[in-house]
Amino acid sequence: MTYDLLAGTRIIESAAFIAAPLGGLTLAQLGAEVIRVDAIGGGIDYRRLPTTGNGRSIYWTSLNKDKRSIAIDLKRPEGRELVAALVTAPGDGGGVLLTNIPTKWLDPAALVRTRPDLISCVIEGNPDGTTAVDYTVNCATGIPSITGNGSLDNPINQVLPAWDLACALQASTAVVSALFHRKVTGQGSRMNLALSDTAFSLLSHLGYVTEAELLASARTALGNDIYGAFGRDFATSDNRRVMVAAISLRQWEALVAACDLGETIRTLEHATGLNFATEVDRFEGRDLIGALVKQWCKVRTFSEVATAFDRHGVCWGRYASTREALETDPRLSSVNPVFERITTHGIGAHLSAGATVRIAGADRGSVRPAPRLGDDTDFVLSEVLQLTGEQIGRLHDQGLVAGPEKADPFYSGIC
Amino acid sequence: MTYDLLAGTRIIESAAFIAAPLGGLTLAQLGAEVIRVDAIGGGIDYRRLPTTGNGRSIYWTSLNKDKRSIAIDLKRPEGRELVAALVTAPGDGGGVLLTNIPTKWLDPAALVRTRPDLISCVIEGNPDGTTAVDYTVNCATGIPSITGNGSLDNPINQVLPAWDLACALQASTAVVSALFHRKVTGQGSRMNLALSDTAFSLLSHLGYVTEAELLASARTALGNDIYGAFGRDFATSDNRRVMVAAISLRQWEALVAACDLGETIRTLEHATGLNFATEVDRFEGRDLIGALVKQWCKVRTFSEVATAFDRHGVCWGRYASTREALETDPRLSSVNPVFERITTHGIGAHLSAGATVRIAGADRGSVRPAPRLGDDTDFVLSEVLQLTGEQIGRLHDQGLVAGPEKADPFYSGIC
Repeated sequence: MTYDLLAGTRIIESAAFIAAPLGGLTLAQLGAEVIRVDAIGGGIDYRRLPTTGNGRSIYWTSLNKDKRSIAIDLKRPEGRELVAALVTAPGDGGGVLLTNIPTKWLDPAALVRTRPDLISCVIEGNPDGTTAVDYTVNCATGIPSITGNGSLDNPINQVLPAWDLACALQASTAVVSALFHRKVTGQGSRMNLALSDTAFSLLSHLGYVTEAELLASARTALGNDIYGAFGRDFATSDNRRVMVAAISLRQWEALVAACDLGETIRTLEHATGLNFATEVDRFEGRDLIGALVKQWCKVRTFSEVATAFDRHGVCWGRYASTREALETDPRLSSVNPVFERITTHGIGAHLSAGATVRIAGADRGSVRPAPRLGDDTDFVLSEVLQLTGEQIGRLHDQGLVAGPEKADPFYSGIC
Repeated sequence: MTYDLLAGTRIIESAAFIAAPLGGLTLAQLGAEVIRVDAIGGGIDYRRLPTTGNGRSIYWTSLNKDKRSIAIDLKRPEGRELVAALVTAPGDGGGVLLTNIPTKWLDPAALVRTRPDLISCVIEGNPDGTTAVDYTVNCATGIPSITGNGSLDNPINQVLPAWDLACALQASTAVVSALFHRKVTGQGSRMNLALSDTAFSLLSHLGYVTEAELLASARTALGNDIYGAFGRDFATSDNRRVMVAAISLRQWEALVAACDLGETIRTLEHATGLNFATEVDRFEGRDLIGALVKQWCKVRTFSEVATAFDRHGVCWGRYASTREALETDPRLSSVNPVFERITTHGIGAHLSAGATVRIAGADRGSVRPAPRLGDDTDFVLSEVLQLTGEQIGRLHDQGLVAGPEKADPFYSGIC
């Protein structure tokens, strides 16, 4: 937990992969107690690549920090009843379910009978409940066919699971909005959120849908050019690469000044009738501008380019691999208060991010490393369901729940 | 407004481009009254491409629906004071500022003296306050060098402004969390959110950062292959293209059944020692699997492929342009309750998205088309600042505020 904005809120997360887990992580870092429920031995994403040498998943542990873990036998009715009991347990801040594994045995329409003020957010692939993942939604949006030099015959998928990220954060926004609403009115909200709706609605909000509906010319691939203004990538003489953006007039003027292009640009404007002070004309004349900046960059070292760009306030960035960023970019280091070094069981010591937001005058709490599976089984049964030690012992004996020693293949020795 | 979860909340948005406007739109569709403040004549993004024939921005109107618009002369101290007054105006639900145009004259550290329970979310490029946009952050994350068949020398930028989208939704989550906190404790929150922190923290949450820190082998470009399991794109005999994902065991078994590959796969497993029932080995053996599925798809029409995939429950999607999606995909049509047809001033009739989330038993309100600039100037001055008609008239006379007739070049005639 980084901040305590959502203190007193308890969220049960039954989840896999990205959308619900990242939604839960976001809420956890803002102060909610997020209890992730998993099958004994781990869910479908528990061993997902990349893994460390011992098989521990960097993917899973990155998405499930700052949460509690309870391991339950989800195949048996008694185990399923335990999950339902956790969701509907009493308490002002409880009664919240976040899941992307919709299932009949954890149906909000039934749970609401036990807890009428239930808040649930069920993330689905498509709105009809059928399966879809980021990749199978993305192909349907039109984005891969305009990425890089792609086309419909030669689409380029985005590597970043951008729709999953957006869906996760739409879910976190919706859950907190429902919490706010419940705090004001006492009423719960049963919510569904489809990954495909995330993609298509954001495509609408960004204007792509209306553009496709109303404009005759379709958006085409532009390589690395920014649409609608000026921006593209350039190589320096020592084979580094930079991305330059001149979207605003100020950014454009900075670029012109940094590259000492004022006179040349005026000549070109006169010759072409374009007015590069407008972003529309910068976009129209992007190849002319690009050729000039390319020439300027290619005879200068990265250091020379960086110095000139920074002196004039150009909006630019340097291409780097994630590893280079980690080694050289202070924004991705523990100098940045958003990041800190933690030690995760089975992973080792590494950099990790807390809440992205920073709040003036509020101390940032530490990131709690991802739990071992079942690390909090007994604590959760005792705290949330008020079970006695004897009752909890019986659940263990029946194999209905497990602590880390049985639940987690990474418990002993190897880690 | 689609739902009334945030009813009674009033947010002043001083914004441009995507991150803050999309955050505001998200909150508006969940029930907040979002008042967008713009300079008379429009801000830096008011004419951004794409535009209709008359120059009206599809981009701006798509991002600013469901909001109110007030146009103020932001260069004069009296105009700036009006904005500050709007932010700090009394009322339980007021006192919320969302901005990605940080400026000294609208500094939350000063505003909080007038309204101690202020909630502010200031979106910046970098955490040190310097400028960055999606493109100049993205290049620094490592993603473009592993997109498609890209590399550090030949990076492929993502077209979707994914970090802007994520930043917007982190902002909406943070603002509502602060509203919840204020409802419980009475205390406000002064928050900052940097676009670069959005990118690097999500990169950390997805495991990329720890992978780069701890694993010897760096992530490389995989074309359209899914990392860590099996998935890629295939052409059909009639030159359509599909994306197939076999991440879970069930998805894998469906693909094997649909393509009738059971026996071949067993033979290959025997020959290679791989066990394709595990996602790790599906990833390892992706070229073998890919060659088989490619062969199967290329001798079948799209219709045959689709029928077989659907019958067996394969997780797949079809590549389409945004326009094709609009013409053929029911998920992007008014059959889907998330979408409806609206008429926007200066744009015309078009499909538009309300809130992505769906709430059981709650009626969806209609999307209110983007306002003309200054459409709500008088209403906002009267409702929020309680100014009289005479006072408002004086502000108009002084040129400090404008209604649509002066503020909006699209007011008359041409639209």
